[in-house]
Amino acid sequence: MLILGIDPGLHVTGYGLIEADRHGFTIKKSGFIKTRIKDELPKRLLQIHGELAEILDRHKPDALVLEKLYAHYKHPLTASLLGHARGVICMLAEEKKVAFFEYPATRVKQVTTGHGHASKEQVQKMIEHMFGAARESFGPVDTTDAISLAVTHALTIRAKL
Amino acid sequence: MLILGIDPGLHVTGYGLIEADRHGFTIKKSGFIKTRIKDELPKRLLQIHGELAEILDRHKPDALVLEKLYAHYKHPLTASLLGHARGVICMLAEEKKVAFFEYPATRVKQVTTGHGHASKEQVQKMIEHMFGAARESFGPVDTTDAISLAVTHALTIRAKL
Repeated sequence: MLILGIDPGLHVTGYGLIEADRHGFTIKKSGFIKTRIKDELPKRLLQIHGELAEILDRHKPDALVLEKLYAHYKHPLTASLLGHARGVICMLAEEKKVAFFEYPATRVKQVTTGHGHASKEQVQKMIEHMFGAARESFGPVDTTDAISLAVTHALTIRAKL
Repeated sequence: MLILGIDPGLHVTGYGLIEADRHGFTIKKSGFIKTRIKDELPKRLLQIHGELAEILDRHKPDALVLEKLYAHYKHPLTASLLGHARGVICMLAEEKKVAFFEYPATRVKQVTTGHGHASKEQVQKMIEHMFGAARESFGPVDTTDAISLAVTHALTIRAKL
């Protein structure tokens, strides 16, 4: 089963594609999409949509996994802008008919590090440990956060694999 | 010049298409898109995208107008969900190569009613007055808010028409 985790952001959107079976999982592809601050919002959103659509078309994952929305964003404007990017990605799941899953951040951290309140850096370290990557070789935490979402889904549905 | 105003909402998205020239403006089409609460977020977003894409394809407006984002949403979660719908619409402007404009709510109210802090009902009344519609015939305030955005753009660029 191919699982694509995505960590949306207007500036940087991380993604990680893992293949999971009864025996474990391997990483197939990971990276991030960066948009330019000087570009207008519509253009940045279409870029995120376009690059992710290409990944979905090429790899045809069975599941798309996002972090669940939570109510305590510090800045409403930040929450709104993040919502713009997340909205485009949610829509894409439906557009490409990929099953859509969400997990709360605390669950993702719990599953990947054993601590529900682990830092992004701890998650990054654990993901790089899991997949044998050298330190920071996956790039920004947006990418490792995305991979951790895919891992969480794989471990959650393990019984069904 | 054809101007499409849109008032995004995950539950109800209003829209209003007006034709503006040097002599004034007439309403060409207006209405709203309603999604079902019981449907999942990706499906609701794709519905909004699909219905608006159809309107853009059929009428080929020259401009798409939204209310400018503002920093003081009461609930971050509401801001985020609204952002999801707004993101899909922003992206659509770029996708269909329609020029994209935003106006602050206070400016829209100022232009349409003469008062920057008018209520949605006052905007509705004025829009229905402008276009000769009987009371509430445009439907919800989401629709009249959308029309008021189109009107604001028309009056703002009037000199160029």
